[in-house]
Amino acid sequence: MATGSTVLPPLHPVAGVRLGSARAGIKPALERDDMTVLALDENCCVAAVFTQNTFCAAPVQIARAHLGEAKPQYLLINTGNANAGTGEQGINDARQCCDALADLTGVSSAAILPFSTGVIGEHLPTRKIVNALPQALADCSEQGWERAASAILTTDTRPKGCSRIISIDGRPVTVTGIAKGSGMIHPNMATMLAYIATDAPVCSTLLQTLLNTAVAASFNRITVDGDTSTNDACVLISSGRSGHELIDDESSEAAKVLASAIKAVAVELAQAIVRDGEGATKFVTVRVEQGRSVAECEQVAFTVAHSPLVKTALFASDANWGRILAAVGRSGVEGLDANKVSLFINDVLIADDGARASGYSEAAGTEAMAGEDIVLRIGLGRGSATAEVWTSDLSHEYVTINAEYRT
Amino acid sequence: MATGSTVLPPLHPVAGVRLGSARAGIKPALERDDMTVLALDENCCVAAVFTQNTFCAAPVQIARAHLGEAKPQYLLINTGNANAGTGEQGINDARQCCDALADLTGVSSAAILPFSTGVIGEHLPTRKIVNALPQALADCSEQGWERAASAILTTDTRPKGCSRIISIDGRPVTVTGIAKGSGMIHPNMATMLAYIATDAPVCSTLLQTLLNTAVAASFNRITVDGDTSTNDACVLISSGRSGHELIDDESSEAAKVLASAIKAVAVELAQAIVRDGEGATKFVTVRVEQGRSVAECEQVAFTVAHSPLVKTALFASDANWGRILAAVGRSGVEGLDANKVSLFINDVLIADDGARASGYSEAAGTEAMAGEDIVLRIGLGRGSATAEVWTSDLSHEYVTINAEYRT
Repeated sequence: MATGSTVLPPLHPVAGVRLGSARAGIKPALERDDMTVLALDENCCVAAVFTQNTFCAAPVQIARAHLGEAKPQYLLINTGNANAGTGEQGINDARQCCDALADLTGVSSAAILPFSTGVIGEHLPTRKIVNALPQALADCSEQGWERAASAILTTDTRPKGCSRIISIDGRPVTVTGIAKGSGMIHPNMATMLAYIATDAPVCSTLLQTLLNTAVAASFNRITVDGDTSTNDACVLISSGRSGHELIDDESSEAAKVLASAIKAVAVELAQAIVRDGEGATKFVTVRVEQGRSVAECEQVAFTVAHSPLVKTALFASDANWGRILAAVGRSGVEGLDANKVSLFINDVLIADDGARASGYSEAAGTEAMAGEDIVLRIGLGRGSATAEVWTSDLSHEYVTINAEYRT
Repeated sequence: MATGSTVLPPLHPVAGVRLGSARAGIKPALERDDMTVLALDENCCVAAVFTQNTFCAAPVQIARAHLGEAKPQYLLINTGNANAGTGEQGINDARQCCDALADLTGVSSAAILPFSTGVIGEHLPTRKIVNALPQALADCSEQGWERAASAILTTDTRPKGCSRIISIDGRPVTVTGIAKGSGMIHPNMATMLAYIATDAPVCSTLLQTLLNTAVAASFNRITVDGDTSTNDACVLISSGRSGHELIDDESSEAAKVLASAIKAVAVELAQAIVRDGEGATKFVTVRVEQGRSVAECEQVAFTVAHSPLVKTALFASDANWGRILAAVGRSGVEGLDANKVSLFINDVLIADDGARASGYSEAAGTEAMAGEDIVLRIGLGRGSATAEVWTSDLSHEYVTINAEYRT
């Protein structure tokens, strides 16, 4: 189950970035592509953010190290096996895959960034991956985004991609991204991978800033800060092939327009992950307003978004606002005055002054909950800060997927 | 579904404490007792702890206020309606019930402590409760524990009680308690009520200390500190009828023996709540060892215990230790060295040095997970502190119960 559109939008090529996918057979039962190579032109610049989890997977450790050693020229992604919790052998396995790709392409091993997603704690079938590398390289083309969007999936029910063509100084710039991830109750524990590329030329410092800003407004809105899986990664590539002058001033008009487009692509990819939440039947926006700080609004929003009782009520399309207020009340916001809290479901005022609104009827609440897209709007009555997070409901199918994942 | 024994053990009477139950018909469909009165002899001393939730229910506000005004002589408990999120009218409704019981018994209204559990946000049917008061009073007897244990339930599948007779200075002392609660993923959001009584004479200061200590080691081990529902309450009553001298010195042998018995009863009631977790098929002990502090051990234990991915794996009897290590890794313990973390499931060493143990086989893990009672033992490898929490798995039935609770 999942919500929203199942159709992958057209993904515009980004000059200088080629993608090739192949079937390595990492999980024999998986009869589809399970690995992807991104080949970056030599002018490409790369920024990346990784999981904050103490147990970061071997490929994350290697990718972090390689980023400090050389300019990345290839990204190597496999699904079906996370190469996490695999100790020293896991490190060697990830290195071996990089070495093999380096041998085939004539670059240094440090110019290759590895990414893995799938089951934790099993050793990577390196031979299968190495054997499939020539096929993935042969498949590389700037038209490879759609195929790659499918090749990187795990329990996702559909590929996720987003592409924008914007205008900077009267000339087109492309921003294209793909992502995978669907573990939605605590997305932090299911791997989220995202790759976004633009042909705009951006200096490496600004590129990292653009990525950090976009991630804070998108992928970090579907997870708790620092609360990530063993393998999460998000990469932003600039190929510089659009013909513009180098963008290196954050306050320039060009930087702002580009930042806005990158953020929009990241938000759409993040929301697509929520929409494909495991067993999701609702797409839920939790918007907290009237807080003293963004931090306290986020705190309330995530407490509500993570509450299993709220999520099962959403699954039942039950306007069980008592559970929502109870979650607000236990979110730990200091000095919160319960008597000033209000709650809307979509445009229906459910509670104000901390209790059921006088004009509220169960029928109105039920009607508001009937749709697929739900907005829970919570007013704290103590300031003007706001924060928004996105989540899904908790359904039978979630339990089924996660109870059967390894079988 | 639930785990462990379904049989209520014998609940020994506590001299000076009488319990009476009745059917008020608060939820017409509920064809059983739904209210209970505890009548306390005038020598009884009462200690209580309540929810830390900002949205505390009307009866909690009234009970807190009454405790400061008069010596409690009656406890009035109803199920089927939490009288929470009901604003000013909720306060008046709770007062009205206390007033009615005061009129019938000739005590002041402030000598009555009200408790409610059930649906949030609907107004209390006070007339039904008031009308049933005479019947509950007529039913009052020291033998009323078993009937009361059933009358206070909501979605619980069975009554919960525990009773011990111990010896202090060669003479018997009784400690008897009952509890309700079964919302088990985040127990904080489902109401937990517990009433424990002893005939030992205890001064009110020490009584509160004994209660706080027992709750910290029991009910707070199945929830997060401060992370409670709108209605949670735990009451400890001392009737002083055992014939002992007043126990008022915490360091005395008598106080220690009594404290141990009260704690044991509280732990058994708390574990009974977990065993009756909504849809629970496993009783899971998460024991974290080798920490630098109890606080960091608790932090790790609760992160693991709350993880939906760990809980669904437990439901599937799947030794998916990668999910457990991932939860440890994101628990936020500063400076945790992943390479020193170890994990046992029951007595099977699953992971050490942060990766799969060399001698571990999937078959051994599967066998360990097959039972109903599971111990996850996590070593942090950085100290000697330990902490233990109890939880249940996440099953289809949990979703069913919570998606259908109001229908």
